[in-house]
Amino acid sequence: MTRYERLADDIEAAVRRGVFAAGERIPSVRRASEQHGVSIKTVLHAYALLESRGVIESRPQSGFFVREAMRAPAGGAANATATGPANGASGAATKRRPSRPVPPAAAPVDVSRLVLSTLRTIGAQDAVPLGSPYPDPSLYPWRRINQYANAIARRHASWNLIDDLPPGNPELIRQIARRYAENGMPVDPEEIVVTVGATEAINLSLQAVAKPGDTVAVESPTYYAMLHAIERLGMRAIEVSTHPETGLDLEALERVLKRQKVAACMVMPNFQNPLGFCMPDERKQQLVALAAAHEMPVIENDVYQELYFGQTRPTSLKHFDTRGLVLHCASFSKSLSASYRIGWAMPGRYRAQVEKLKFLNTLTTPSVPQVALADYLRHDGYDRHLRRVRRFYRQQARLMRAAVQRFFPAGTRTSDPQGGYVLWVELPESVDSMRLYQAALARGITIGPGYMFSMRNDFHHYIRLNYSYPWTAQTEAALKTLGDLVAQMA
Amino acid sequence: MTRYERLADDIEAAVRRGVFAAGERIPSVRRASEQHGVSIKTVLHAYALLESRGVIESRPQSGFFVREAMRAPAGGAANATATGPANGASGAATKRRPSRPVPPAAAPVDVSRLVLSTLRTIGAQDAVPLGSPYPDPSLYPWRRINQYANAIARRHASWNLIDDLPPGNPELIRQIARRYAENGMPVDPEEIVVTVGATEAINLSLQAVAKPGDTVAVESPTYYAMLHAIERLGMRAIEVSTHPETGLDLEALERVLKRQKVAACMVMPNFQNPLGFCMPDERKQQLVALAAAHEMPVIENDVYQELYFGQTRPTSLKHFDTRGLVLHCASFSKSLSASYRIGWAMPGRYRAQVEKLKFLNTLTTPSVPQVALADYLRHDGYDRHLRRVRRFYRQQARLMRAAVQRFFPAGTRTSDPQGGYVLWVELPESVDSMRLYQAALARGITIGPGYMFSMRNDFHHYIRLNYSYPWTAQTEAALKTLGDLVAQMA
Repeated sequence: MTRYERLADDIEAAVRRGVFAAGERIPSVRRASEQHGVSIKTVLHAYALLESRGVIESRPQSGFFVREAMRAPAGGAANATATGPANGASGAATKRRPSRPVPPAAAPVDVSRLVLSTLRTIGAQDAVPLGSPYPDPSLYPWRRINQYANAIARRHASWNLIDDLPPGNPELIRQIARRYAENGMPVDPEEIVVTVGATEAINLSLQAVAKPGDTVAVESPTYYAMLHAIERLGMRAIEVSTHPETGLDLEALERVLKRQKVAACMVMPNFQNPLGFCMPDERKQQLVALAAAHEMPVIENDVYQELYFGQTRPTSLKHFDTRGLVLHCASFSKSLSASYRIGWAMPGRYRAQVEKLKFLNTLTTPSVPQVALADYLRHDGYDRHLRRVRRFYRQQARLMRAAVQRFFPAGTRTSDPQGGYVLWVELPESVDSMRLYQAALARGITIGPGYMFSMRNDFHHYIRLNYSYPWTAQTEAALKTLGDLVAQMA
Repeated sequence: MTRYERLADDIEAAVRRGVFAAGERIPSVRRASEQHGVSIKTVLHAYALLESRGVIESRPQSGFFVREAMRAPAGGAANATATGPANGASGAATKRRPSRPVPPAAAPVDVSRLVLSTLRTIGAQDAVPLGSPYPDPSLYPWRRINQYANAIARRHASWNLIDDLPPGNPELIRQIARRYAENGMPVDPEEIVVTVGATEAINLSLQAVAKPGDTVAVESPTYYAMLHAIERLGMRAIEVSTHPETGLDLEALERVLKRQKVAACMVMPNFQNPLGFCMPDERKQQLVALAAAHEMPVIENDVYQELYFGQTRPTSLKHFDTRGLVLHCASFSKSLSASYRIGWAMPGRYRAQVEKLKFLNTLTTPSVPQVALADYLRHDGYDRHLRRVRRFYRQQARLMRAAVQRFFPAGTRTSDPQGGYVLWVELPESVDSMRLYQAALARGITIGPGYMFSMRNDFHHYIRLNYSYPWTAQTEAALKTLGDLVAQMA
């Protein structure tokens, strides 16, 4: 099979799986060439072949679009027609849709649609939420934080929004800075900007350093919110291969930087989602030096920093940054409470821009959650809580790896997470994770299909599993079912 | 004085006031031509004159920049060196800035910087916050809502983020829809997307319908968050003159639509900030019809809908929209609590895009505030609370108008607000609102300078006053001081 035939097959498969919907635009020739690492000519050949097959059509001045007749047979991820518990799930998702006609979305590669529909199916009474990106909320001191919230509310007859305008509540900022200092990383409290979760911090950071049309380097596989941010702001992602134990391939990044202008790099050096590695200190230093040599801002997503399995908290890229080029983003969502939506950015030399963008994006972060978290951090057993969580996740990681090894067929490999609560599983190459996702959903089990973590097709036979939920007979049974499905598909 | 000399004077004055900071780029020739309604040639002449005066310099490939030596004598709005209470205010603002060097911002017209610095000075123990855009928080049932929040927290041992993913908490969405229905506007609950305040709703709506480089029509004067959204997304604002009693000049808008492509229109038909008018129903219908004829989406900011002085709630543009072209944005920030940051969008045919953008922007809106507001709306005296607020604001509007008429010199005129809590004041034309702002700040009084509400220089002699705070001898004294300052400057 020639290269362009293989590319055509990949795109056709994506259309049939619903990754690209009928009427939706597929990536431009230039973009596809970048994404798949093939020449413009190869893409043009592949697109011509797809046109002749009736899969896509070209529209003058607009690009290539999926033909209306090419709706995926099973309706794609959002419309799974499976029976059993999944029926309720997809039924709920369908019911939520507006009755009015909606024009086709403009986004070329719609990873976010896949992610959102996956989250919805998890929300709809999923028995075994292996596909969830969030930790089991029952492990977190939600009630304790709420008690602080209540105390604050009782102390004040009213609350003036103005007091917590960006950069954010001063006491919360002080507590965040103190926490870094205690972990051996002194930070300037005046650099911190409080945000609505790390999601907003990442979005604002990216917007502060790059503009539409710019190219941004990401890990491959990468945490999909990185791809979302790039997609949404009309930028181009260039995926750099990433080692499951040492992280971003710095030599590959350097080659990219020599070849083209890269506006920013987005990485997750600690317990990367989905791979779970911790980038060694010397690699972190090298990355920061490389960024400095190219005057390239680095957006560091460090949301798992507190969930390490080793003895001490790993260093952040920020720690090695003397030039103000690292925009460090983090949150309490993985360590204290996701539903409060408190994150922050330390954007180095881009601090003024990020603060202003925060003001423009959501005005300010809700007040009581900011103050309640500050009170919790000042008074309560954050370290004790974290020690318990770390111990638990470390043990759960072992259980999950063992279960995959026991139930999945030969040719399956897993990551070896050094922190966090997700496992990355490589299945035999013939297994399509989207088909597995749908088959599993029909049995009340969700998984994170590899397609979410890249715009290339490299991870079609990978899945991400969440091990934050207590291990039960049901978990065990779900993994056995998954293993059987994989064996049938292999 | 020729036209280009007048333009040069205006820009130089803006630089001296700190509207454009040293090293910052000023609007491109094309943009300045649009903003000021003059020819490209006039702008080129004006810029050449400013270069010869040493005010700006041109940089090849980059545009025109304020020269480093041109720092405003008093340091501009953010750095007022006034004595008295203002010293503490500007000192606090200065202290918050990062110590690292910050490259000049890219935004051509930085209305947001002026707004943010105004808000900061208000936050810093302002004695008389006439410049605040927010209602006096003491009038709102903050404690009651917090009691609901506490009850929710006690009922649940933990909270699963997934249940409130976009579009938002189902019960809150139901309560919002019910409220519209009770006011004679049946809406489809499935159209509602919960956001972090109306600010996020407006940002996402604009991003759903227009792209960087597009032109967006706004009222003039307009609520500055509209300008912020346009500025931030790299779009161009075209300001359409707006009548203080009937709102947007539809004939002027139609002329613009005939002349050029307009991607969207952003309006505030009910109790516009700063003018306070309520657009008559037939004008609302005409605007919706005009939008339909041009297939132009309309972003309707309706945050003051509940704060009417008349007998019934005014209609929304949305009410007349049969084509799904109106993206209706609102929040509870003006009617229940601003610090909870709960807003929503009803984006018509753009609903799917807005929901997706919400997911990408901040993932989800904090859970407890959503549920607490839903509980309050279901059980408590929202209507009783609103009747009290409306009566109070109506009376306050009368007091504020009377005080301005008494204390301000001849040539001063005020708006006649039909709802909301702000008064728009036209001063004698020789009075510069930015100079007045700084002089007032030195006496512990804030105002909203007219510059915030337009990118043109049309409102340099206008100010906005907040009348939501209870009327006291101090308020009276502040208005007398303001009136004296205006008289000195007139």
